Amino acid sequence: MLKKNRLFTPGPTPLLPSAQVAMASYGAHHRTADFRTLFARVLADLKEFVGTQNEVLVLSSSGTGFMEASVSNLTSPGDKVLVLTAGKFGERWISLAEAFDCNVDVLSAPYGSTFSTEEVKKRLTPDIRCAYVQATESSTGARHDVEAIAKLVRAMPDTLLVVDAITGLGTTHFDVDGWGLDMIIGGSQKALMIPPGLAYGAISERAWQRMETTKSPRYYFDLRKERKSAAKAETAYTPATSLFAGLAAALDYVRQMGDGNLAAGRKALVDNAEMCAAMTRAGVEALGLKLFSPRAPAAALTAVAAPAGADSTAICKRFRDQFGAVVANGQAEMKGQLFRIAHIGYYDYLDTAGVLAALEQVIAEVTGKAVEFGCAVKAAQEVYKQRVASSE
Amino acid sequence: MLKKNRLFTPGPTPLLPSAQVAMASYGAHHRTADFRTLFARVLADLKEFVGTQNEVLVLSSSGTGFMEASVSNLTSPGDKVLVLTAGKFGERWISLAEAFDCNVDVLSAPYGSTFSTEEVKKRLTPDIRCAYVQATESSTGARHDVEAIAKLVRAMPDTLLVVDAITGLGTTHFDVDGWGLDMIIGGSQKALMIPPGLAYGAISERAWQRMETTKSPRYYFDLRKERKSAAKAETAYTPATSLFAGLAAALDYVRQMGDGNLAAGRKALVDNAEMCAAMTRAGVEALGLKLFSPRAPAAALTAVAAPAGADSTAICKRFRDQFGAVVANGQAEMKGQLFRIAHIGYYDYLDTAGVLAALEQVIAEVTGKAVEFGCAVKAAQEVYKQRVASSE
Repeated sequence: MLKKNRLFTPGPTPLLPSAQVAMASYGAHHRTADFRTLFARVLADLKEFVGTQNEVLVLSSSGTGFMEASVSNLTSPGDKVLVLTAGKFGERWISLAEAFDCNVDVLSAPYGSTFSTEEVKKRLTPDIRCAYVQATESSTGARHDVEAIAKLVRAMPDTLLVVDAITGLGTTHFDVDGWGLDMIIGGSQKALMIPPGLAYGAISERAWQRMETTKSPRYYFDLRKERKSAAKAETAYTPATSLFAGLAAALDYVRQMGDGNLAAGRKALVDNAEMCAAMTRAGVEALGLKLFSPRAPAAALTAVAAPAGADSTAICKRFRDQFGAVVANGQAEMKGQLFRIAHIGYYDYLDTAGVLAALEQVIAEVTGKAVEFGCAVKAAQEVYKQRVASSE
Repeated sequence: MLKKNRLFTPGPTPLLPSAQVAMASYGAHHRTADFRTLFARVLADLKEFVGTQNEVLVLSSSGTGFMEASVSNLTSPGDKVLVLTAGKFGERWISLAEAFDCNVDVLSAPYGSTFSTEEVKKRLTPDIRCAYVQATESSTGARHDVEAIAKLVRAMPDTLLVVDAITGLGTTHFDVDGWGLDMIIGGSQKALMIPPGLAYGAISERAWQRMETTKSPRYYFDLRKERKSAAKAETAYTPATSLFAGLAAALDYVRQMGDGNLAAGRKALVDNAEMCAAMTRAGVEALGLKLFSPRAPAAALTAVAAPAGADSTAICKRFRDQFGAVVANGQAEMKGQLFRIAHIGYYDYLDTAGVLAALEQVIAEVTGKAVEFGCAVKAAQEVYKQRVASSE
């Protein structure tokens, strides 16, 4: 059988066709009125997409580049910071803060889990200059309660809160200004449906003030310089122009999803991820599989524990070899223990049903146990029917 | 008349059509055999393109990101470095080295000029840990004599030489290993004919050794981490996948230019730039205009001084408005004083003849003086005929 290559991974995600066309055909110089118009539109649209009055900037790098910017711009060597971690991406905050000589305090929760408000409260001492957390820990599929954490951080006058929402933006609801998030970071290859290469973030006034005094070295990721350039609708350094053209097309698509309104489009995108997630979870459980992060599952992806006696590496391999679909394995030491089915961005009902049918087939073959074909799909269909009915 | 949009700027350059198609259609995940194969091929091809046995790495950023990597990886705070500068990009080295707390010694030459070997020799004291220079200063069109500078630096046992060849690679000849360049840096949006967003560089064993002891903070641009990942055909962080696919297509094209050999393709690309440059220079001079960098003109671009009484801003504007062609103005304080016609990468005879014809028209209208139509084109044609004859 023909096998289409499909990405069911938590980034990169399936590409939006109109963005692919835009990326291929955009060849303008970045110091022209043409690019300035595109760039200003992308910044304004992203502000609406993120849902904030804070200034939004875009960097030509992966999301990790903006994460670095949040450390190098907001801290000075020796500053005490608190990292909340429960997975590989939480651990990236630790490495980053250590690279910039911060004094790093760590609150860990087990992989697949999240923190209790009590624990966070206890660790938030007044000397902490920045707290770092993921909205969605994409290595485990867990969602952290950013709203509750923000409430605690906002009670501390000198602590900034930085949220890695690279996977979270467009799959989870945020009230950036209402909750008082000082920096929220997104990436192009997630809900915004284009390839990796751009990172964006919204920056609060408190964070801009902090940058007046911080002393860590930065140049390519210097946000104050980038802000000055953005005021003239320019980037500080040569931008990844074709990806900007793709991003503009993707934001147009999200606006269409919201009947002409980007905020409504973002909500529709989150609703879509939640519907796909609910369907996928029901299907996975109907197959007798266990969620890896049952207590706080993110809408962005469904992380599934490998069934007893089976290795998730074999499951991912069979998915790819037999059906052309790429499902993500666990990362680093979690390899073999779980697999991850994403539903971020450009996914729909047919993708969800198809991946569940393929999963039934793969599980039957990998475990050697009898599987009632159609059971996962049926469970998903029932969730769909019920949710559609209740929204009418 | 219909106006095609054409870039005659020193980066970005005209896009290679086969690379545009590759970029639009590539949607693979970066942690798959598919991407690893592509990535390993790009690294091997770049090594051949650069013409080195040194390890080549690619970063998902603009060229400035790799420039930052050459400072943050090769220096510790307080290290003495020497910057050779004669334009806007030379000044970037100063800002970068200052951002990372180096003790910066500067040797400047006037804009449009270059350094004498004597001056460089005098400034190269044994305590200089790194020397930084451009191969081609694209703000003025001047070429610096990297071979002669390298000879001087190689006499110093503790000094590394870093060359920004973002515009130089593919427009100038380098013997990276023979001259002993410790780092040479290129960008995707120049001779390699794709949009901005990737930077590449070749790194000597001496430079790798230096990294064992340097202490400047780095994370996203940590070359040692990137090297470890590259050994497994992976990138340390999420790469700009679609640009990698474009780069692979561009390298295929350069290999075809060299009849199946990438080194020969690189030579053909340099020869092409030199032919375009010689034709453009002859045309410009036939029009009575003065080169901005007459003593050491780079093959990458022809920088032309604005004629007496005319502003180069008006020349660039008319070029764009009347003919759709983007010619670069001077940068920052050089705005209005010069304009720059690039011939980097995907340019040919027809582009060169066309831009000269348009230049005749533009100069006549902007200066109000009589211009003998065809004089610049004719001068270029004569250069072409002579060069083709002498190569036969």
